[in-house]
Amino acid sequence: MILTVTLNFALDITYELDRVEWGRTNAVRPVGRRAGGKGVNVARTLHQLGHAVTVTGLAGGTTGAVAREELTTSGMTDAMVEVSGESRSTLVVVEAGGEVTGFSEPGPEVSGLEWDGFADDFPDLVDGASVVVLSGSVPPGVPVDAYARLIGLAGAVGVPVVLDSHGDALVHGVAAGPAVVAINAEELSGVLGSDEVSVVAGAERLRRHGVSAVVVSSGPDGIVCVTEEGSWRAAPPERLSGNPIGAGDAATAALAVGLVEGRSWPERLCDAVAVSAAAVCAPLAGSFDDSVYRRLLARLEAEEIGAS
Amino acid sequence: MILTVTLNFALDITYELDRVEWGRTNAVRPVGRRAGGKGVNVARTLHQLGHAVTVTGLAGGTTGAVAREELTTSGMTDAMVEVSGESRSTLVVVEAGGEVTGFSEPGPEVSGLEWDGFADDFPDLVDGASVVVLSGSVPPGVPVDAYARLIGLAGAVGVPVVLDSHGDALVHGVAAGPAVVAINAEELSGVLGSDEVSVVAGAERLRRHGVSAVVVSSGPDGIVCVTEEGSWRAAPPERLSGNPIGAGDAATAALAVGLVEGRSWPERLCDAVAVSAAAVCAPLAGSFDDSVYRRLLARLEAEEIGAS
Repeated sequence: MILTVTLNFALDITYELDRVEWGRTNAVRPVGRRAGGKGVNVARTLHQLGHAVTVTGLAGGTTGAVAREELTTSGMTDAMVEVSGESRSTLVVVEAGGEVTGFSEPGPEVSGLEWDGFADDFPDLVDGASVVVLSGSVPPGVPVDAYARLIGLAGAVGVPVVLDSHGDALVHGVAAGPAVVAINAEELSGVLGSDEVSVVAGAERLRRHGVSAVVVSSGPDGIVCVTEEGSWRAAPPERLSGNPIGAGDAATAALAVGLVEGRSWPERLCDAVAVSAAAVCAPLAGSFDDSVYRRLLARLEAEEIGAS
Repeated sequence: MILTVTLNFALDITYELDRVEWGRTNAVRPVGRRAGGKGVNVARTLHQLGHAVTVTGLAGGTTGAVAREELTTSGMTDAMVEVSGESRSTLVVVEAGGEVTGFSEPGPEVSGLEWDGFADDFPDLVDGASVVVLSGSVPPGVPVDAYARLIGLAGAVGVPVVLDSHGDALVHGVAAGPAVVAINAEELSGVLGSDEVSVVAGAERLRRHGVSAVVVSSGPDGIVCVTEEGSWRAAPPERLSGNPIGAGDAATAALAVGLVEGRSWPERLCDAVAVSAAAVCAPLAGSFDDSVYRRLLARLEAEEIGAS
């Protein structure tokens, strides 16, 4: 079982329409409404890839309850922990021309007691997991070293962690030594405080802070990994258009699978690129187009990058 | 008591942010979340004006339940009728620069049995009302002559009706003889099938189909009424910026009050213009800025329009 952690759990709402008229009221077509947050997208991808997955994190209120119900209906195991605040919604507006605009609410205020309760019960959940994936932002009230604490707890029972976050939560998380850090190029620039460093050099710099492997996605330009064993790059062999929200989470799911199955880094990278591109072709975050995935995977090759 | 009818009841969500970056994911500030639909906006304005108000319509699912709870908390009487479908959400995105963009979901599929049940129980609700206000679109499955049927039922027990709708529901409603039709200039053009008719001539044409008074709002250009007793025009004496969604509903509320209290048409018109402009100054649809309302009301005068 792979355990995904979504501290800022959400109800994802997707609106589809031909074209948004800004400054007006727009009628939208019947909408998608399902559990969300980056960790849930990862879990959904893992489930579609055929892996058993348990979803944990903090959920509250009616919004949390509706999202949890959908989680179970979709075949994932719900191990969310209840908080007193109301879980957030996230909205994605998809225009027929391909423009995708998202709106992300801050999330519920979580008390110190609620957070401690989650962390105290976390080892029991980790106990049955082969890998833990920590994804996304932390809701208000959860301390900035939250991921560092969870990485420590997983490490204590020998379960490796894949971390995808940004800002201070990422900085603290990196210091706790996750097995893999999976981020996008923008998050990497953000945490380095500069966008004048190449992706490879930036990933290498981050890796030296105690991570075995840093994987950086640059959207359609592909993915780079910098690991103890070497560095590789892979990119989709064709341009794909669609909804890029959740594509990074699909890549993270592939990296978790690679860790479980002990695949080589070039294999993991090709898998991450293929599923990520296939996710762009599916209208809802967390899903991927199976035929696109297979087609790309057959054509992909990772290229080794010389030491910088 | 004034009875407002919202067949397409909603949970209104308002996002505020400095500026939307289209094609990206935008972090939004903590959000407003309350009962909505045009009839609820009317009810909220009536409540703020100090009138007892009962809200009915069709509500379903978790979204309906959350919205109904807010309705009661806000001091309105909840007489919604439960349907099996899930009530819709509407989203309003307000940018600091004043741009307001709305997204409106279609609403739940209502069965013929559910609609008949509502109509059968309607006379009991109307029984205690001084005026009935019918507002907005009808959800999928509700027949296009829905408002005509409700106007007939209210007429049978001598309770006058204010109707604010558009398209076919408006056309059918007009034929059933409501006391007042309150619409905006765009809805008038839509129902006349032409925007080459002046607002006054168009309102007169609509009135001849069996309505005592037709009131047409042209946003910041003010409101025109064409009635059996004459025609008047009033416009806000100053330009106000803010959220125009719900401003028309505030005007409709003022017209309902004018009907209850037997005010003159020039008085009703000034009241409608003042509360509508004051609604633009309040961030959430259904609320108005009390001091703006009083200030404008003191300065407003209606101008009589000669026979066309």
